[in-house]
Amino acid sequence: MTEALRIGIAGLGTVGAGVVKILAARGDYLAAACGRPIELVAVSARDKTKDRGIDLGGVRWEDDPMALARADDIDLVAELIGGSEGIARELVEASLKAGKHVVTANKALVAHHGTALARLAEEANVALNYEAAVAGGIPIVKAMREALAGNEIRSIHGILNGTCNYILTEMETTGRDFADVLKDAQELGYAEADPTFDVGGIDAAHKLAILASLAFGTEVDFANVHIEGIEKISATDIAFAREFGFKVKLLAIAEKGDDGIVQRVHPALVPEGTPLAAVSGVYNAVAVDGDRVGHLVLEGRGAGEGPTASAVLSDLVDIARGLVVPPFIVPAAKLKAPAKPLMDAHKSSFYLRLRAVDRAGSMAEITRALAQASVSIERIVQRGEKGRAGGDGSGRLPVVFITHETDEGTMARARAHLAEHEDVAGTPLVIRIEDGELR
Amino acid sequence: MTEALRIGIAGLGTVGAGVVKILAARGDYLAAACGRPIELVAVSARDKTKDRGIDLGGVRWEDDPMALARADDIDLVAELIGGSEGIARELVEASLKAGKHVVTANKALVAHHGTALARLAEEANVALNYEAAVAGGIPIVKAMREALAGNEIRSIHGILNGTCNYILTEMETTGRDFADVLKDAQELGYAEADPTFDVGGIDAAHKLAILASLAFGTEVDFANVHIEGIEKISATDIAFAREFGFKVKLLAIAEKGDDGIVQRVHPALVPEGTPLAAVSGVYNAVAVDGDRVGHLVLEGRGAGEGPTASAVLSDLVDIARGLVVPPFIVPAAKLKAPAKPLMDAHKSSFYLRLRAVDRAGSMAEITRALAQASVSIERIVQRGEKGRAGGDGSGRLPVVFITHETDEGTMARARAHLAEHEDVAGTPLVIRIEDGELR
Repeated sequence: MTEALRIGIAGLGTVGAGVVKILAARGDYLAAACGRPIELVAVSARDKTKDRGIDLGGVRWEDDPMALARADDIDLVAELIGGSEGIARELVEASLKAGKHVVTANKALVAHHGTALARLAEEANVALNYEAAVAGGIPIVKAMREALAGNEIRSIHGILNGTCNYILTEMETTGRDFADVLKDAQELGYAEADPTFDVGGIDAAHKLAILASLAFGTEVDFANVHIEGIEKISATDIAFAREFGFKVKLLAIAEKGDDGIVQRVHPALVPEGTPLAAVSGVYNAVAVDGDRVGHLVLEGRGAGEGPTASAVLSDLVDIARGLVVPPFIVPAAKLKAPAKPLMDAHKSSFYLRLRAVDRAGSMAEITRALAQASVSIERIVQRGEKGRAGGDGSGRLPVVFITHETDEGTMARARAHLAEHEDVAGTPLVIRIEDGELR
Repeated sequence: MTEALRIGIAGLGTVGAGVVKILAARGDYLAAACGRPIELVAVSARDKTKDRGIDLGGVRWEDDPMALARADDIDLVAELIGGSEGIARELVEASLKAGKHVVTANKALVAHHGTALARLAEEANVALNYEAAVAGGIPIVKAMREALAGNEIRSIHGILNGTCNYILTEMETTGRDFADVLKDAQELGYAEADPTFDVGGIDAAHKLAILASLAFGTEVDFANVHIEGIEKISATDIAFAREFGFKVKLLAIAEKGDDGIVQRVHPALVPEGTPLAAVSGVYNAVAVDGDRVGHLVLEGRGAGEGPTASAVLSDLVDIARGLVVPPFIVPAAKLKAPAKPLMDAHKSSFYLRLRAVDRAGSMAEITRALAQASVSIERIVQRGEKGRAGGDGSGRLPVVFITHETDEGTMARARAHLAEHEDVAGTPLVIRIEDGELR
């Protein structure tokens, strides 16, 4: 047995406390598995007096987390504070510059500064591991970085935000609307008081930008993720989607286009019977399509103390075993600057819901407007009856069109045109249909 | 860039040829990802003249695979021959003794001799990696060995044989019977001419024994896997199961019992809506339940050139990066001898199908016999009509019972008793119901 890997943990929220618990409970096993012990030397958090249900006897307390980066008796700093700037960023940069390995669960930090941090890590010949930053307990970073090295990756489709998936699942099973379910989710602790990062798709976009870099060998490029949240999805849409044989999911997709990498986060109709359609509640999942392995799907818990701490341990164990890999697989200097294909070029079928004014000939006018906009229709469902999905007795009839494949630009123009149309009440809602890449 | 990892490949079937193709296509990427090239130095196979669609220019040909173990210019031997004994075993043993890393796709070899081979690898301080031996392209060995190190594993439920899953899926979607679908599967190349290893559950049991060792820190113990195949499952059973809300799957299960590890491979009724029920066709899947991570499910292709070669590359990349881990996570000397709990103690609900003689009072007699055998009934379905599931016009009525939870011993005695019963024609079929551990 060789020398211990000596670690310092910054941040003792649920994840930090979870890591301390595992180190205490499984110390002997981890030492046998790694050929050396993992020793918790020091911790830093805001409130020393708080009861976290963990035993910190014999562990040094640092009021200033930066002390961990400076300490001579620490080989690895685990940054479990969060946030893309401020103390988390300073601590990670200082630790890497001081030649210490870094393990982090901080998706915002890696999404915004991943490539620059990778350079720091490589200069110091240390690891920067971030398994816990993407999809909680699902070992997707390890899969991309190690298991799939023999593959050219064609696409990634992920359900990467448990809050959104919980809300959509609840809307589906109860028929209740977004705002109502969100309020419940907040009371249950599944959604933050300010839910913008989750329901607006930003959290999923952070994770997607990281996965896209791993998949395609490009610099992390959060700024060019196309992001739409789930705020406009109604129970009506979910009911219509089900009639057509789809579930509504917030998907995070990265794929190779003709002239670059498309990264997009948005609600999508996913065909029932595909693995991602079956992912319910707070679960996350990632479907990877590789040229050799084919479709590989990983599903599990994307957040919470246990799953996230499990992912942090995965990173610690790798480093304890001596594995130091460039953070984005190939050295940062070899990462390509990602091309920025226009989202306009993306093609799919679309779900288009609008309210038609209830007068003779309105449907004919609307379908004619769509035809003029070069959008061709595969199916139409109209509801008049009260009590059925979408009927509200207002005299405005919900109509749903499923289009044939068309491009984003065409669809956006058609939607804008319809929004101004005298036979359409309000702005139509458009949801992409994803069915080609999911098996 | 440091020195190349110099490899020799023994066996150039679909998997071996697939590995050669990836090394050729992705050499630059792999060198960047590993910090060193992976160089194919020599190969050995039976027929030098066969066209495999690969370029072996500059690669040494060895007629005798054992030459790879002896060669001074080889650091790693990839054994892609197969079989638990004979040349595959000799080659792996000789290579490890000669201080060479070994990568193998050979599930039978690892299931039968895993612990002894691990000792050889550890004595020589080299790697023995076998990702491709379990579930093809699914990185389950890596997940168990690395990603889940922070977890105490509670159970593993796997669909580990694509041939069986293909046959059961086809039986379900077409209503055709086992023998008929098997014949088609053989013609399509999804089943071997001698299908015993697959449909008899032995192949799945090999993989399960390996996973159980990784999960529970016990010596590989193939001899104590309880094995039943899918040969007795009829289209009738699949139709009945569907009526009750189940799919029929060949499951491979390892779980901690009160006094040891239970390892079992058998057909099972799996509730629809769970991840494993949705795994169709030749796909494999593994659901792991860990105390921190919760339920984690990995699904993908379990066989074939691309997926299996992808898994071999995963092992090669780990070794090229310098990762040498004891083959079963902790050193072989620390693996526990597995306790052997009696399968009799296992408890579940059961599906029991029999044919009742068509006379007044026969059902009363049969249910009384079950009560006397201490088996309590949750649901009964009886079919009389021709043309409906199970009706064959023979005057013997298929009856299906779903029992409350009971133990294996009680169920086996009840089944034996019914087989002798004058109101029962033939031997009843019993299928376990697995619903507790699948979410």
